Amino acid sequence: MKYSIIAIGRQFASGGRIIGQNIAKNLGMDFYDKEIIALTAKEGGFSEEMVAKMEKKKPSSLEYSFYGYQQELPMSDKIFMTQFKVIQQISDKGNGVIVGRCADYVLRNNPRVLKIFIYAPMEERVWRCRDVYGIECKNYESFIKKEDQKRASYYNYFTHMTWGGFSNYHLMINSTIGIDAATDMVTDLIKTSE
Amino acid sequence: MKYSIIAIGRQFASGGRIIGQNIAKNLGMDFYDKEIIALTAKEGGFSEEMVAKMEKKKPSSLEYSFYGYQQELPMSDKIFMTQFKVIQQISDKGNGVIVGRCADYVLRNNPRVLKIFIYAPMEERVWRCRDVYGIECKNYESFIKKEDQKRASYYNYFTHMTWGGFSNYHLMINSTIGIDAATDMVTDLIKTSE
Repeated sequence: MKYSIIAIGRQFASGGRIIGQNIAKNLGMDFYDKEIIALTAKEGGFSEEMVAKMEKKKPSSLEYSFYGYQQELPMSDKIFMTQFKVIQQISDKGNGVIVGRCADYVLRNNPRVLKIFIYAPMEERVWRCRDVYGIECKNYESFIKKEDQKRASYYNYFTHMTWGGFSNYHLMINSTIGIDAATDMVTDLIKTSE
Repeated sequence: MKYSIIAIGRQFASGGRIIGQNIAKNLGMDFYDKEIIALTAKEGGFSEEMVAKMEKKKPSSLEYSFYGYQQELPMSDKIFMTQFKVIQQISDKGNGVIVGRCADYVLRNNPRVLKIFIYAPMEERVWRCRDVYGIECKNYESFIKKEDQKRASYYNYFTHMTWGGFSNYHLMINSTIGIDAATDMVTDLIKTSE
């Protein structure tokens, strides 16, 4: 198998997480999504709550004005750099499926990394958000767009690339082809890669 | 098999045509790329040269000013509409792999159509353009960008969508995963689709 790390970016409620879990299960690989929060907290001496809060946030200009004054990096940058180190460690250790956290960017020069982006039409994501995740809110479309926007801002800020821009990925999959179909397709691609 | 028509958009020199040919061969389907030029010429009573020349061109404002005056559609619009009809006829007839010609847009409401976009990094496309296609030119990168621009302008003009925008497609494949790997992946997806 050529690929030992699968880095999956995904629109909110597109099914990217479950596709990643299924691929990891099929290939006997470790799966990392929220697991990276605990690893980053441990590595950097942060609380898990702080990592969870900050990892979706790019630093504000206010934080940077403090940075200039205090000669200390904003917390979101410190957490990103620690996450960067954790993702490198996972990659060095062997194999795994990593969801989100700019892993495609962190490991962009590693030829053993397969970079994937999962997306879906809004109506499919509203359905998943409401009926699969059981999230209750007044305006699902607005909620989903805001979650996407957080991911895009974080990714674009730290990578200087465009979240969901095809040149960053090997494969972009519309999950309306089916969660199982997407899982099988990627699993077979990896199994037969040389 | 759920999908009977495969519509493939592709960056210039990304290998999309050969992937389409291989998929058609694997599935025993007819393959349509330049073949559509002859069919469109026959259907509309145009010369093949005229179709080939106009199908990469959106109408100029000058042509539209004549349109207003003469009450006749610009030639590029007439050819697009005839191509539209030809693509519908291919779809009605049964199955096939169609490369380019906004087929993903023309057949966008048909659930039996799998819509794919093939792309590749510039250095890979320069190699394919020079060493596989044997095209000779002074500046490959500029030449490739111009060819992409023609495809994008034509697509964006006639479809009011964005060429290469992920929401238009089921799958976007970076052909650096390998022409054979891409072919096999799509073939298996179609064979196992229900």
